[in-house]
Amino acid sequence: MDYGARYKRYADMVEEALTGGIETLGGVSELAGAMKYSLLAGGKRIRPVVLLAFAEACGGNLEHALPFACGLEMIHTCSLIHDDMPCMDDDDMRRGRPTNHIVYGDAMALLAGDGLLTLAFEVMLEPGHFKLKGGADARRAAGAAYQIALGTGERGMTGGQALDITASCENATIERLTATDELKTCGLFSAAARAGCVIAGAGGALVDSAGRYGLLLGLTFQIVDDILDVEGDPSVTGKTAGTDAKLNKPTYMSMLGSERCRARARELTEQAANEMNAFGSGGDFLRELAQKALLRVQ
Amino acid sequence: MDYGARYKRYADMVEEALTGGIETLGGVSELAGAMKYSLLAGGKRIRPVVLLAFAEACGGNLEHALPFACGLEMIHTCSLIHDDMPCMDDDDMRRGRPTNHIVYGDAMALLAGDGLLTLAFEVMLEPGHFKLKGGADARRAAGAAYQIALGTGERGMTGGQALDITASCENATIERLTATDELKTCGLFSAAARAGCVIAGAGGALVDSAGRYGLLLGLTFQIVDDILDVEGDPSVTGKTAGTDAKLNKPTYMSMLGSERCRARARELTEQAANEMNAFGSGGDFLRELAQKALLRVQ
Repeated sequence: MDYGARYKRYADMVEEALTGGIETLGGVSELAGAMKYSLLAGGKRIRPVVLLAFAEACGGNLEHALPFACGLEMIHTCSLIHDDMPCMDDDDMRRGRPTNHIVYGDAMALLAGDGLLTLAFEVMLEPGHFKLKGGADARRAAGAAYQIALGTGERGMTGGQALDITASCENATIERLTATDELKTCGLFSAAARAGCVIAGAGGALVDSAGRYGLLLGLTFQIVDDILDVEGDPSVTGKTAGTDAKLNKPTYMSMLGSERCRARARELTEQAANEMNAFGSGGDFLRELAQKALLRVQ
Repeated sequence: MDYGARYKRYADMVEEALTGGIETLGGVSELAGAMKYSLLAGGKRIRPVVLLAFAEACGGNLEHALPFACGLEMIHTCSLIHDDMPCMDDDDMRRGRPTNHIVYGDAMALLAGDGLLTLAFEVMLEPGHFKLKGGADARRAAGAAYQIALGTGERGMTGGQALDITASCENATIERLTATDELKTCGLFSAAARAGCVIAGAGGALVDSAGRYGLLLGLTFQIVDDILDVEGDPSVTGKTAGTDAKLNKPTYMSMLGSERCRARARELTEQAANEMNAFGSGGDFLRELAQKALLRVQ
């Protein structure tokens, strides 16, 4: 199966599970609608794809991994909703549509994020009720959900968001920026990679290689996003252009410039490819995925 | 051991675990400080106490139950921080101190809530890293964490908060108010009761009795809180008085009046006590706990 077909197969599995699963919610007030609005906004589902690819590279069962892939996307969606709120980045548009709080109001958007963050753990810990097959061994399931919690919380994505909101061009260094992104963006990518291995029952050395791949991929994505924020076409990226500059936020672009950003992204992609050697031919797809991230700006 | 000594024993276990555990966080930016500020604000720890009491009533190991008790309190604290924010209830004071967003700002308060909600699942799924002993069977641990996720999310507390923010005196009925509280307040109480049984390995009938007890206790608490919001002394309750009336929110007090509220609370407490019959003498403490809730307004 070529790269595109395989990506589509993983992404379609996730899309179908998310679409079917969200309908099973209680539909209390507008909350389920607000959660669904952002969850089914048609993202690339790249974090769940990474998780499923690692599970398959380790010889795991994709049906067992699917609840964790869905959970990861719910957590990512929570972070987007909360990040867009007026007290955070105050963004009106996301993926070409009005952001959650513009449609549902700030209070409901806050709760929609909380609801998705919690639903992730419901789905991972008892996949049956979300019409997912699940059935992974309880120890592996708890272990994979733990990896995802760790990548999400204070030592992961949320900790990185906290560093990000206190960042300004005045206190910026490239080290601080990298430390921020290693938590903010890389937290969920590393968690995706590690959880995919854990759910497949892989051992510690593979889990650690996967975690490093996730970190390198996350940094590549962040640099590429920074480049696209300046040079990208809003009709393609679906985002308001120049947001970072408007917020007076330090970025790789403002600190390194376009050429050095591209060189750094190439270097990170090579390192990520090297981490995949431990997975043999099972790692080919993930090596190519890192390359494709880079190609968006080459 | 009498009621007071037993309550103190449970609450002290939780306080000690929370205090020691929060120090193990990474301390990124101000986030860990903001999480700690609200988590260690000296609440009564009643939800964790209910969880530990049910675990003990079912013959379970308190050390195995402790991570779940701590997780529950972290989730409750998240809900308080987010509820107090300007886009929600806009409260400046909580437990006699300025609320989280007053001290840390709206963005950090939002993240502190997200961080605590996530930390709850970290602690429940891998108690070892939080210096808790843990060690419960993985299937029981995943089951208990699932009960807590269910009581927290769209079909629990968060769903109830969503109903609550769309409530007004114009659309108020006693049925809608009760349906709101059965999710908003009772979600975590039921989850506490059910998770305590699950972690101890108790069977379905006991778990269901426990869940009904949690529901009845939660409703009692909500009615008692509504009474205290009107009639209570802010120096005792630690809350701004008359908040509900200020927000034009329907309450049991505004709909039933003081006398009928007290009668309803007595009736619920009796029903809760009856649910404890299935637990034999192990249920005595929980029967008394429901009585004490009532005594705050008798």
